[in-house]
Amino acid sequence: MKRRDFLGAVAGATAATALTACGNEESAKTVNVEPQKSYEWKMVTTWPKNFPGLGTCANNIAKLITEMSGGRINVKVYGAGELVGAFEVFDAVSQGNAQLGHAGAYYWKGKIPSASFFSSVPFGLTADEMNAWLFYGGGLELWEEAYKPFGLIPNPGGNSGTQMGGWFNKEINSLADLEGLKMRMPGLGGEVLKRAGGIPVTLPGGELFPSMQSGAIDATEWVGPYNDLAFGFHKVAKYYYTPGWQEPGTTMECMINAEAFNGLPADLQSIVRNAIKVANADMLSEYTARNQQALHTLITEHNVELRHFPDDVLKELKKISMEVIEEEAAKDDLSKRAWASQKAFKEQVIKWTEISEQTYLRARAL
Amino acid sequence: MKRRDFLGAVAGATAATALTACGNEESAKTVNVEPQKSYEWKMVTTWPKNFPGLGTCANNIAKLITEMSGGRINVKVYGAGELVGAFEVFDAVSQGNAQLGHAGAYYWKGKIPSASFFSSVPFGLTADEMNAWLFYGGGLELWEEAYKPFGLIPNPGGNSGTQMGGWFNKEINSLADLEGLKMRMPGLGGEVLKRAGGIPVTLPGGELFPSMQSGAIDATEWVGPYNDLAFGFHKVAKYYYTPGWQEPGTTMECMINAEAFNGLPADLQSIVRNAIKVANADMLSEYTARNQQALHTLITEHNVELRHFPDDVLKELKKISMEVIEEEAAKDDLSKRAWASQKAFKEQVIKWTEISEQTYLRARAL
Repeated sequence: MKRRDFLGAVAGATAATALTACGNEESAKTVNVEPQKSYEWKMVTTWPKNFPGLGTCANNIAKLITEMSGGRINVKVYGAGELVGAFEVFDAVSQGNAQLGHAGAYYWKGKIPSASFFSSVPFGLTADEMNAWLFYGGGLELWEEAYKPFGLIPNPGGNSGTQMGGWFNKEINSLADLEGLKMRMPGLGGEVLKRAGGIPVTLPGGELFPSMQSGAIDATEWVGPYNDLAFGFHKVAKYYYTPGWQEPGTTMECMINAEAFNGLPADLQSIVRNAIKVANADMLSEYTARNQQALHTLITEHNVELRHFPDDVLKELKKISMEVIEEEAAKDDLSKRAWASQKAFKEQVIKWTEISEQTYLRARAL
Repeated sequence: MKRRDFLGAVAGATAATALTACGNEESAKTVNVEPQKSYEWKMVTTWPKNFPGLGTCANNIAKLITEMSGGRINVKVYGAGELVGAFEVFDAVSQGNAQLGHAGAYYWKGKIPSASFFSSVPFGLTADEMNAWLFYGGGLELWEEAYKPFGLIPNPGGNSGTQMGGWFNKEINSLADLEGLKMRMPGLGGEVLKRAGGIPVTLPGGELFPSMQSGAIDATEWVGPYNDLAFGFHKVAKYYYTPGWQEPGTTMECMINAEAFNGLPADLQSIVRNAIKVANADMLSEYTARNQQALHTLITEHNVELRHFPDDVLKELKKISMEVIEEEAAKDDLSKRAWASQKAFKEQVIKWTEISEQTYLRARAL
């Protein structure tokens, strides 16, 4: 695998290249040309290859990096199970077997207790609020600290927006209806479900449909209409619940192997970082645009019944969620600081969201 | 000004450059090096130089382009009045006197009737919904069509999120309180204000404070707490109203001179486009993070009184808004198509916003 094949084909660069007439003509000039290296990078992901929204978000990052770098970095994307298993992505990038990994941070909470705070926590921040905390509220610095011992650089790499509450075959009218329910729910949401009497299961996306079909699990949450329709959950469940209290604005992640990143020249470092940032915003736009169409299809073509969790159930789940989060935050120093930071930010930003967008949405509906 | 000074200093490129030990080592190789041109670009803006959030968003775009291009494009940013006046930005970039322009599309609605649909219309889309329509709902293609005859390529270049309703020195308890009120309000909001009995005025940001101070205008809206605090409106007005029905999620723009853009190699084209896309998302995150702090300062340190427009007033304004928008949409073929596209998208996306984020925000507040 060690291909130190430096082609070194440096073109006979000449300053005589004619400039075509264009808006740049007056200011264009040739610049120093340094020998450039190209890089073959691998991206491993926790999603099925090309899976709508998630797999395609990973593809988008790869494409943007290649495009902006003029091919100096070529990224090959691997679906879950192609190079490593879905839940081996973290280790693969940490060990340098791949340079990039696209996943969700809460998948690693067994290894890094603070990880949930960087993806989504129950009754936490919305997508815009998460981006605000990560980029302008100190969140990303804490995340970087959490991943540093593993030789990884984390980046927000997509956001699903507010997710749905999940797929059920019975109505949830009280907390008692969750009793004994075997439901796929990762992260802290799963712990909340457990304390509410349910049995949480963590499974990668690709295993959810067969598990529902075989009866290995009774219920599942995944993302939202656009993704859920793609997996066909309407064929194995009747009721579709809102809201996704367990994941109100989940940040996906694109982790970079720090050694590989540090070996890049500054322009390519900036290109990699910003390609991921573009994809982070793009995914939310795509989901905002496509979820309603998918929901419409689920309801009108597949007779899915949309249900709202009753207020009493939500109040109970919120109470349990706060207990679970406080306990999780006590697990290590970084979790404590991550939650303190996010909690303080949340208390502030909730007021602004209420005064601005929430007040507006009420006015628009008058 | 015609500096055809091709320096052409092509470095003696060599393949012998030693690779340091790093995660890239196995795959790094040198590639063909073509003579590269560098470009000196100008960006003109409608904002005061370095103005928090808006001027700094323009700076951010310039910095990202320079950084990702490794200095191959160097962008110099000019504040309003430095190279051209605030409202001359469109013409300056159209004529190629600058390659980039940072502004808001609704400033050009006199020239391009459809322009308002690409920034914000009263009771229209929120920030996330606007991005969804522009990038995944056909909005950007229509905007490109609108700007093409002027030799311009439009790009969403920042979003303020839901704005505030404005600064007043009297309470607004009924529509009659708007009668004869001279208020700065650009775009279609201004037309709505006019039909509600007010006198709308269009002024660039930098002229708002002196105009309020001298009494030339009675009231003004600008953006939100973060920007409004920077201009010091609390010194000249007592009441701060919510919601910003006139601008629920305003898209800023970064227009590119098409001839200059088309003269760039593909990698630099991608870098310019994506630098703007990063800034588009960044601005919303920054505003989400900073508005609440600023609002807190305004209320606690400057004794500003926060007020909500009464439901009756909002209902009336919404009714007038729909009339104004329909009339505006009838002005030319493109306006008609832009509104038809946005309206159809809005009818869909409103349902999703209600079922997902709005339902969640209610649950979070239980």
